[in-house]
Amino acid sequence: MKIAVCQSNPIIGDIKGNKEKILAGYKRAVSENAELVVFPELFLCGYPPLDLVEKKEFRGAVNKASLEIATQTNNTALLFGTITEDYEDSIGTGVYNSAVLCYDGKIQFVQSKTLIPNYDVFDEVRYFESAKDVFVHEFNGEKLGISVCEDIWNDADYWKHRRYTVDPIQKLIDNKAEILINISASPYAYGKRKERYEMLKRLTKDDKVPLIYTCCVGAQTELIFDGGSMCLNSDGGLCLLGKNFEEDFFIYDTKKNYPSVENVEASFEEEVLKALIMALKDYAVKTGFKKALVGLSGGIDSALVTYIAAQAFGKENVHVIMMPSKYSSEGSVEDSRKLIQNLGISSDKISIQSVVDKALEMLRPAFNGKGDDVTEENMQSRIRGLYLMSLANKHGYLLCTTGNKSEIATGYATLYGDMCGAVSVIGDVYKTQVYGICNYINRNEEIIPKEIIIKVPSAELRPNQTDQDSLPPYDLLDRILKMYLEEQKEYDEISEAVREPETVRKVLRLVDMNEFKRKQSAPVLRVSTKAFGYGRRYPIVQGWRR
Amino acid sequence: MKIAVCQSNPIIGDIKGNKEKILAGYKRAVSENAELVVFPELFLCGYPPLDLVEKKEFRGAVNKASLEIATQTNNTALLFGTITEDYEDSIGTGVYNSAVLCYDGKIQFVQSKTLIPNYDVFDEVRYFESAKDVFVHEFNGEKLGISVCEDIWNDADYWKHRRYTVDPIQKLIDNKAEILINISASPYAYGKRKERYEMLKRLTKDDKVPLIYTCCVGAQTELIFDGGSMCLNSDGGLCLLGKNFEEDFFIYDTKKNYPSVENVEASFEEEVLKALIMALKDYAVKTGFKKALVGLSGGIDSALVTYIAAQAFGKENVHVIMMPSKYSSEGSVEDSRKLIQNLGISSDKISIQSVVDKALEMLRPAFNGKGDDVTEENMQSRIRGLYLMSLANKHGYLLCTTGNKSEIATGYATLYGDMCGAVSVIGDVYKTQVYGICNYINRNEEIIPKEIIIKVPSAELRPNQTDQDSLPPYDLLDRILKMYLEEQKEYDEISEAVREPETVRKVLRLVDMNEFKRKQSAPVLRVSTKAFGYGRRYPIVQGWRR
Repeated sequence: MKIAVCQSNPIIGDIKGNKEKILAGYKRAVSENAELVVFPELFLCGYPPLDLVEKKEFRGAVNKASLEIATQTNNTALLFGTITEDYEDSIGTGVYNSAVLCYDGKIQFVQSKTLIPNYDVFDEVRYFESAKDVFVHEFNGEKLGISVCEDIWNDADYWKHRRYTVDPIQKLIDNKAEILINISASPYAYGKRKERYEMLKRLTKDDKVPLIYTCCVGAQTELIFDGGSMCLNSDGGLCLLGKNFEEDFFIYDTKKNYPSVENVEASFEEEVLKALIMALKDYAVKTGFKKALVGLSGGIDSALVTYIAAQAFGKENVHVIMMPSKYSSEGSVEDSRKLIQNLGISSDKISIQSVVDKALEMLRPAFNGKGDDVTEENMQSRIRGLYLMSLANKHGYLLCTTGNKSEIATGYATLYGDMCGAVSVIGDVYKTQVYGICNYINRNEEIIPKEIIIKVPSAELRPNQTDQDSLPPYDLLDRILKMYLEEQKEYDEISEAVREPETVRKVLRLVDMNEFKRKQSAPVLRVSTKAFGYGRRYPIVQGWRR
Repeated sequence: MKIAVCQSNPIIGDIKGNKEKILAGYKRAVSENAELVVFPELFLCGYPPLDLVEKKEFRGAVNKASLEIATQTNNTALLFGTITEDYEDSIGTGVYNSAVLCYDGKIQFVQSKTLIPNYDVFDEVRYFESAKDVFVHEFNGEKLGISVCEDIWNDADYWKHRRYTVDPIQKLIDNKAEILINISASPYAYGKRKERYEMLKRLTKDDKVPLIYTCCVGAQTELIFDGGSMCLNSDGGLCLLGKNFEEDFFIYDTKKNYPSVENVEASFEEEVLKALIMALKDYAVKTGFKKALVGLSGGIDSALVTYIAAQAFGKENVHVIMMPSKYSSEGSVEDSRKLIQNLGISSDKISIQSVVDKALEMLRPAFNGKGDDVTEENMQSRIRGLYLMSLANKHGYLLCTTGNKSEIATGYATLYGDMCGAVSVIGDVYKTQVYGICNYINRNEEIIPKEIIIKVPSAELRPNQTDQDSLPPYDLLDRILKMYLEEQKEYDEISEAVREPETVRKVLRLVDMNEFKRKQSAPVLRVSTKAFGYGRRYPIVQGWRR
């Protein structure tokens, strides 16, 4: 069977636009003689639609569009993800996350999702009931085994620990499915594409069926979808792999032989850089922003964010401000100028000192004679935030925040100061990884000035300050954080691994007590298996102590 | 049977403190000859523990404390809510939300929660498996039917639309339960206590069994628990009702007759005021803040928040700042002074004008000759935010934000300006309700100056500005918002009800497009069935249009 894979980028809620994408993909596939055209999970409404699903008006519009799409089909079949409803037994939400198969002008078959994920960034039990049953559907003489995303992630042979008792794919196999088709919206994290491939390889090899895995691409606020759709033959060979971080369209013929694709994943630096550029671009495209603004401190974080913005928006659409104070080193402005020149972007330099001084003068009496502390440091950061937001408001810039994951984890950031902005671009990238990515950017020529890369990290909020006055060395810090956040390790294990129990205790405590800041942070673009934001939920007020 | 109801206030994660509360309540109950002592749902770890449940170290500490508690019991039984684990079938989380019954030094019986709520503010499927079965347990010659919170909310006779197919309470009845005991952590919303009562009345009357409903009290970040534990006899009569918004301890004797309690709920104004005072106080107590700070504008919102803060912290612990600009009316400061006097709190008056002027002077060149717009208004608000945060940092104040629900809904607030703060005190109270509560506060004497109540609402960010330049009249606005947010009504229904389709369209659009601001808002204390925050989840980037 000739199957067209439409690896497209939907906009959540834009039913009209997504419908047009489906019809355009279908038309192209028909003209290229495909027998079946496949779009990803919940493509018609975009994934994840979140509480939009609870709106009757929204579900009505989605259903209407589904039916309209079906009327446009001929004898080439079209499979796409959408919301369906069934209130027959009047218990539960009555709403399903479904794959809808249309041909000859009608919806001919619906297979709803059986396994409803409800962990990390997934909240699907909030909206969707589990499919009542699983069937194969015969089309053009082949038994299609259709499933939706999570359905394929519960193979008893692959997983040591399973989330669900049911295995809908096994049911499809038992029902003699000859081609497996899975429509997905699988959020990106570095390493996940390889895991998908390993899992699908095992599954197709064991079950001796080819599989078409169609995934969406693009970013939806903080969630990144990398594409990388996969077609595997019945020996577990990867025949076709969709592009990463861009839309793609290709046709897989289950009867043809293909050379095996070997490389599914590039280096961390290459992948994550591409992911962040696409995600920032997509945020802008989907919200209508044309220009970006970054506060350039002279440090490596804002340098990387500026580079990413220049790639996402085009250099002519990126503006930066340098905002020195009396604590800023000469080097900071000089190094920033070099970067500005290398990238070919526009800039302003506006000192914050006179505004800081004026604000201090006004507030001094109310400080009641108390000496300098973190207040004065935060004030500098907040006046920079004020500058940035003022220019963003005046010129319609999208303001990018520049904090990295190590800082956000430990609360080494000022609320309403350097945390101001619409998107936290590198908030899921550790400081040590920031260095790695900058070195990768410089692999052929020096784009990020080496002065910025080699300087000692400092917030420059008081004389001779360095990050390491307050934090452990980043190598150690990031090692601890990664174990704690991504690997879900706890105090004992981490202490044993790094052999610095007091540092570990301090770091874990910093992470736990800074929930209140992260609650008010901009959405963090997610590139790891555990990012701050939607998929990580801790009480702000809590008394858990080790 | 003599049953002691311990309506207590746990701290999430403070296993040691919560354990001590359980043991103290048990000791008291034993000394008062109770046969059974009951604590609320997940009391040992606090509710909702959120992702703390995913920490092995945390679960281990909880389990250890459970066993330690059990060893302290004699022939008086102790029932409390905690996390239990069972990894027997190695599928799923293996973690349960359980009621644990101890006596004679041991855990004698465990009944886990069957119905796992996963809607609005509930995410329990993320953590907990459903109980494998439901049993009664005989103690002192009576068959106890024990259940946890949601288990009791699925009565087929009471609910037109049910969430779950299973009814664990029916199973308990079928198993001949003679006393029903439900341990709960049921978040407050105005109207909910009455609903609980109606539902429990129906259930006990139909099933002819008495019921002891034990609920926790206190606030956990944004969630408020009102207490109001209930003991009903087998005729559906409400025999005992726990205090609202405070801890309580009482003993119910299933063999005694009680006069029926009739009033379970006070007026909206009285209830919500009490709820907010308790919640703000609890936030402070549980995080260690001793003093509060409010920016006093002369408007009604900040007046109400200041009143609430004075009640929660004590007048000697509340400080306010008046921060006039050139657009502030004479009246604003005068009216604020009256309130300050009425409440007996301390204050500062610090003009923002010179800082605004200085910042404008510095930024002007970068404005590129563009005329005044919302930028200049936001700058005033942000400099006020800077002042507030600076004083909060310097003196360790808890900063209370003052935005009401009508403003937050429509985005009529400045990010990093008036939205600065740790807690959004009245963010779930509509503007029209703010008036109602202020009038209630003034029922005996004028505490909130009447000038503040009768003045035309204005942000005072430009000459002669009023809220109604940008927003529909609050009566109409709040009616639309309530239908849209709480009643889940959609455009067609709301338009038909209020007969102003264009206004409805505009308001709904404002709500939808201001998700990005709310993402970065302080936690909103929840007093309605649908508050902004944890229980309402919309994509920030989305294209849904009516």
